[in-house]
Amino acid sequence: MSLPASDTSKRADQRTTMDLGAVLPKTAAVEDDHLHIGGVDMVELAQQQGTPLYVFDEADLTFRMQEYRRAFRERYPDSDIIYASKSFLNKEVVRLAEREGLCLDVSGGGELACARMVDFPMQRVFVHGNNKTFDELNEAISAGVGRIVVDSRTELRRVAAIAKEHGTTQNIYLRITPGVEADTHEYIRTGCEDSKFGFTMREDFAFTCLEEAINTDNVRLVGLHCHIGSQIFALHSFAEAVEVMVAFMARVRDEYGYAIEELDMGGGLGIAYTAEDEPSSVDDFAETITAAVKRCCAEHDLPLPRLLVEPGRSLTANAGVTLYRVGNMKTLPGIRKYVAIDGGMSDNIRTALYHAEYEPTIANKAGQPRTEIVTLCGKHCESGDAVVIDMPLQVAAVDDIVCVFATGAYNATMASNYNGQPRPAVVFVKDGEARVTTRRETYEDLYSRDM
Amino acid sequence: MSLPASDTSKRADQRTTMDLGAVLPKTAAVEDDHLHIGGVDMVELAQQQGTPLYVFDEADLTFRMQEYRRAFRERYPDSDIIYASKSFLNKEVVRLAEREGLCLDVSGGGELACARMVDFPMQRVFVHGNNKTFDELNEAISAGVGRIVVDSRTELRRVAAIAKEHGTTQNIYLRITPGVEADTHEYIRTGCEDSKFGFTMREDFAFTCLEEAINTDNVRLVGLHCHIGSQIFALHSFAEAVEVMVAFMARVRDEYGYAIEELDMGGGLGIAYTAEDEPSSVDDFAETITAAVKRCCAEHDLPLPRLLVEPGRSLTANAGVTLYRVGNMKTLPGIRKYVAIDGGMSDNIRTALYHAEYEPTIANKAGQPRTEIVTLCGKHCESGDAVVIDMPLQVAAVDDIVCVFATGAYNATMASNYNGQPRPAVVFVKDGEARVTTRRETYEDLYSRDM
Repeated sequence: MSLPASDTSKRADQRTTMDLGAVLPKTAAVEDDHLHIGGVDMVELAQQQGTPLYVFDEADLTFRMQEYRRAFRERYPDSDIIYASKSFLNKEVVRLAEREGLCLDVSGGGELACARMVDFPMQRVFVHGNNKTFDELNEAISAGVGRIVVDSRTELRRVAAIAKEHGTTQNIYLRITPGVEADTHEYIRTGCEDSKFGFTMREDFAFTCLEEAINTDNVRLVGLHCHIGSQIFALHSFAEAVEVMVAFMARVRDEYGYAIEELDMGGGLGIAYTAEDEPSSVDDFAETITAAVKRCCAEHDLPLPRLLVEPGRSLTANAGVTLYRVGNMKTLPGIRKYVAIDGGMSDNIRTALYHAEYEPTIANKAGQPRTEIVTLCGKHCESGDAVVIDMPLQVAAVDDIVCVFATGAYNATMASNYNGQPRPAVVFVKDGEARVTTRRETYEDLYSRDM
Repeated sequence: MSLPASDTSKRADQRTTMDLGAVLPKTAAVEDDHLHIGGVDMVELAQQQGTPLYVFDEADLTFRMQEYRRAFRERYPDSDIIYASKSFLNKEVVRLAEREGLCLDVSGGGELACARMVDFPMQRVFVHGNNKTFDELNEAISAGVGRIVVDSRTELRRVAAIAKEHGTTQNIYLRITPGVEADTHEYIRTGCEDSKFGFTMREDFAFTCLEEAINTDNVRLVGLHCHIGSQIFALHSFAEAVEVMVAFMARVRDEYGYAIEELDMGGGLGIAYTAEDEPSSVDDFAETITAAVKRCCAEHDLPLPRLLVEPGRSLTANAGVTLYRVGNMKTLPGIRKYVAIDGGMSDNIRTALYHAEYEPTIANKAGQPRTEIVTLCGKHCESGDAVVIDMPLQVAAVDDIVCVFATGAYNATMASNYNGQPRPAVVFVKDGEARVTTRRETYEDLYSRDM
């Protein structure tokens, strides 16, 4: 795999770090040309903890969790926020979500295990996944999780059988494919049926399966779930999905006389990866969804369900940054300037996988304008290994500390040991203090499973 | 990320497992409708060891290592084969490479650490990487590695400084960008200069830096290295690169009076991922390279250098397979048939990352023709999570064991814990015996670094 050709006509934007606005963690500041987050000097932190290093602004994470809860509850009291742990997961963030009164979305047994290890209240756990294994369902039901989001008829029967074995009745949702797909700027009503997830509405499949769910012993159908996509900027897509889901609830009442008590609208709110991105606010997101639910329920004369949403990226992405050390530079006139950092596709696969864009700054030159267009390439033996492609940066020197913003989501959780690279530590910073919440991997760790 | 639209016009090829030819590990066989590798029943192995499971045919690995050595040495006695550990690395495969007389290519400290743990002879270690850190270079020089492949002027000075500190002289190569880039079917002489790796030949940069290397104390320039790409089917690309490199060696002799003693032509030989792929043989690869070196050296009146190549994928890919269990199926008429397996992008990121293609079979129906076109989707919470897209398979049922072939390279080494998925065990099979060489990750392992 090679990099896309560099856009050599691109000009640096001259922005300094603090011009990056919504991309930055809330407590980002520049003092004496050094980037500070949570009152901690990122240059000093990199020296102390080594690089690459995942850093989370704890105040930012807490703020966003509280903001989501407030934005929904003040508009819609019977609502809950479910933290989507796939975006970022370690024990400490689960403790934080617990303290802030959030519920937890786990996919599979590994994420559930983390919740159990820190005694997260199991009634607040929602279990997702298109193909939960028998063991995972067994673990979840044994643990007494609040809701299992059932994804297929096979799974419905499996959950019922396991619950029967345990002599219990499991509360479940059905995951519905509402036929609304959203991307960043548009919503599309076609093509979105091609999903491995959930029950399609085509040919009344979801409706038929729902009847089976109602009539299956050892499960209680309490709600419906849908998820229309990720990194969504177009809020009207969510309102569209609400209309479909509430109409479906009304039909269930009309034809089966059954009340769906809870509605989980999934996640997907977009965030600012670059200074050009203009995502919607959490308040606008909450307003769109709650207003749509109230309006549609009134139209269908339905009581208001308990309402849930599942943010992941919009809680964690901007709270997190990654620090790297510059190893060398390579200028190819007319082609590209490479700045080589000591991480890469092992700690951030999103650039290679999704052509993701990120904003970098040099933490020890953070007050200076970013005057060059560079590619931050990683240290892996692969041409396509880059974290940032064609973005502005201050003039780099060996041993500079580079900070890449908005890496809090889907970086640590998708990290690998490619090329024998130990995974970075995760540090939470707050009020001038840095706290290691996940230690750096060692060489011994890497081969500890080898015989 | 979504999947590409399914090609609904595609028809199953009706091939049975044994029709897959070069895709299969050498000892693959079908008995009583069950797939066997290394004399071990893959269905029984999956039951015993759980799924997903990485399985390596040890006889196949050994055969390919021996084949490479023979193919080169019988044509070119002063040659060595360097195992590119980035393609697949655990302690056992390093022991195997050692026993078979191979050298070892490590990139960075983590791969070197594995070699040290199993007492691999350090003089047979070649250290690669476009951005080796100070610590990594220090570890390599302290350990007494045979060759460091120097990638930049910055690194040349760093290696010299560290070697001086240790009171030693380090043998080095320079990595040259020969201006030849190969892809699967074509070779291209343009565009290939856009690389983070090595010294470009443009504007005599490599030539100038080579003079600096010759005149730097504490390093001894013994060879040159190049690597023109991966998964290459067009052997003439290698001959082109040899011409460039040998001409460069002649110029070094002519202008600096300096003898380059070793030539490392890198890796890149393509393999069969699908039944349609027709890769070149190791013998043809060896013939192309050795003939080109002999011819070019004769033309330039140069003595024959020690010749090295660095296969990775072509040693490991076809030796390895992955076993999965089917969890459920979902047929969307006119759109796609999904067969959901209990792994996915966590154990095989190549499908999502490179649009890689793989051949699957059902291990417990291995003698039957593959009559359906399916997508093997994973269990991760992501629409684009699939291991195999639109390929033939027997009609699947829940609890079938699916075998995906040619997953021995860049699967385990790029694996993640996405969605809390523990990484699979690695089992070597041979002569009817199965041996766990890397144990499966546990839930405890996943959070053992959390505070």
